[in-house]
Amino acid sequence: MARVPAPVAEVRRAVREALEARPEGTNARFAASRRANSPLIIACSGGADSLALAAAAVDVAPGAVQGVVVDHGLQDGSADQAQRVAGQLRELGVASAEVVAVEVGAAGGPEAAARDARYAALRAASRDRGDAPVLLGHTLDDQAETVLLGLGRGSGARSLAGMAVWAPPWCRPLLGVRRATTRAACAALDLAVWDDPHNDDPRYTRVRLRHEVLPVLEEALGGGVAPALARTAAQLADDDAALSALAAGRLEVLVGADGTLDAVALAGEAPAVRRRVLRAWLAAAGARELSDAHVRAVDSVVAQWRGQGVPPLPGELVVVRAHGRLRVLVGPTAPARTAGPSPTR
Amino acid sequence: MARVPAPVAEVRRAVREALEARPEGTNARFAASRRANSPLIIACSGGADSLALAAAAVDVAPGAVQGVVVDHGLQDGSADQAQRVAGQLRELGVASAEVVAVEVGAAGGPEAAARDARYAALRAASRDRGDAPVLLGHTLDDQAETVLLGLGRGSGARSLAGMAVWAPPWCRPLLGVRRATTRAACAALDLAVWDDPHNDDPRYTRVRLRHEVLPVLEEALGGGVAPALARTAAQLADDDAALSALAAGRLEVLVGADGTLDAVALAGEAPAVRRRVLRAWLAAAGARELSDAHVRAVDSVVAQWRGQGVPPLPGELVVVRAHGRLRVLVGPTAPARTAGPSPTR
Repeated sequence: MARVPAPVAEVRRAVREALEARPEGTNARFAASRRANSPLIIACSGGADSLALAAAAVDVAPGAVQGVVVDHGLQDGSADQAQRVAGQLRELGVASAEVVAVEVGAAGGPEAAARDARYAALRAASRDRGDAPVLLGHTLDDQAETVLLGLGRGSGARSLAGMAVWAPPWCRPLLGVRRATTRAACAALDLAVWDDPHNDDPRYTRVRLRHEVLPVLEEALGGGVAPALARTAAQLADDDAALSALAAGRLEVLVGADGTLDAVALAGEAPAVRRRVLRAWLAAAGARELSDAHVRAVDSVVAQWRGQGVPPLPGELVVVRAHGRLRVLVGPTAPARTAGPSPTR
Repeated sequence: MARVPAPVAEVRRAVREALEARPEGTNARFAASRRANSPLIIACSGGADSLALAAAAVDVAPGAVQGVVVDHGLQDGSADQAQRVAGQLRELGVASAEVVAVEVGAAGGPEAAARDARYAALRAASRDRGDAPVLLGHTLDDQAETVLLGLGRGSGARSLAGMAVWAPPWCRPLLGVRRATTRAACAALDLAVWDDPHNDDPRYTRVRLRHEVLPVLEEALGGGVAPALARTAAQLADDDAALSALAAGRLEVLVGADGTLDAVALAGEAPAVRRRVLRAWLAAAGARELSDAHVRAVDSVVAQWRGQGVPPLPGELVVVRAHGRLRVLVGPTAPARTAGPSPTR
């Protein structure tokens, strides 16, 4: 047998290692999907990343790979292009290859709307196949771009931690593999790669980070920026996991049967733990889309209590402090400031 | 009295808040320096940041401010320039203004060598004045550049956490103030600002981040990048502080009287805590300049133990595992791999 070209071997190894690290399922259906030859879905656009991923998956788990090609219907001829990719997958030897047409809305801009439609279709494909994992072709370069996007949000470890290899049903085996490697693997396997014109459209923030920011950053810092960003993402993900687990444990102790939170005891925690406890508590109370500023506003009545109120949170939620405990009130009638000259503790 | 211009008021407020947040001293001399009118050293280059800082400090703590101007001797006429800045400080009403000439070496490149010489001189000035705090003019923009530099290193929260407001003897009151504000404050106070030619020299990485990377990042992400980077730094500093405190507590429990570390118990900790315990333990054993890769190599014999060895650490330190405990050996004769076919636990 001929020697396997290095880029092909690297992609295969990444897929093998990711599948070996598959987490224990949290439900019976996902646990069942751990069996050998249980289906693996590959989301394939026909680009170098997902084609190289599909080829490697067929090698690592023969008979298990079911290809799904999402047709976003955003370009003329997109249906034909999707069928062509499905044909490529069949030639690679997948067990099945299906084209799923989706309707892309407008919410959140073109990037977000296309992603939402695609992820919904893939999630449905996973459910239809017993919660089979969906392998995605994101590379180390995508991870670096994600970290830079998170930097722009400025919301700390949570947004800088980037993407995880496993976040069922999603599995991203190539987060440690460079984009250049998937392209080289496709060339070595003689796979015709489709270049999505959106990948060069400067209206997309991610495209501008890729073509304008990263090369300049790379040059200024003397190289190695994308791997450094990916390493940073991995470390911050570990940090956030440890602190979130700690906060979950504290929340369990500090929340009462009536859902109120012991603010006096919480004030003794480290700020990083305190704010995570508050975020988890507020989320459990129904708060959505909380910014860091929202959490800090609530934290101020825990850590710097002098009788002040908290501005309303999204969804007309209001947090009030009384007798050393925090309570969430819902609705526009909730008071934004505590009345009276002498604050209750 | 005339209304105080907004930029001047903002810088004064920042100085006042930083001084109010002065940490409890860890030694008697530093504690003594908390007294009113105990000396405050201002390190002033004559640039907008440190001039605005000096003016604000004189307003906030009249009679306490002692100016120190470091003459790096790197440019013709630097001694005259330093004297000119000392004169400006006297006009602002400082209690004293002193020029300190330093010898800049070559170690670590021109930026690092100048910084090392400057910080050594300021540290000595602090010691001579009963461990007085040294106020430095770093702004929010400097903090953003520091975070980007840390990104290039890829060593996680520790390098992304940027600079702290207080790290005695250093105090940086302006980390939340924009560079444009200090410049506006100087203009409002009619202070002649000196523009260090090094601040535009593209041989310095920091200068290239400032003039090339940040504007492109700002444009790609739609603005607000510098404040977002500064917010990120503050959050990651809190995260790192919480995890480091947790790790210090675990280390105390897991280290034996003989200095060995309980690897079996450590394996049960979250990776973010485990690696911080190892870093602190190795530092206590004399390890210096440990990279993330070094710590991960040692961690692998804790978390993925199968009898393997650890490559030597800087300073010819070698970590070995035997009977479930880690031990540090010093010297080139220490074995890099554990001998024998059956690994000791």
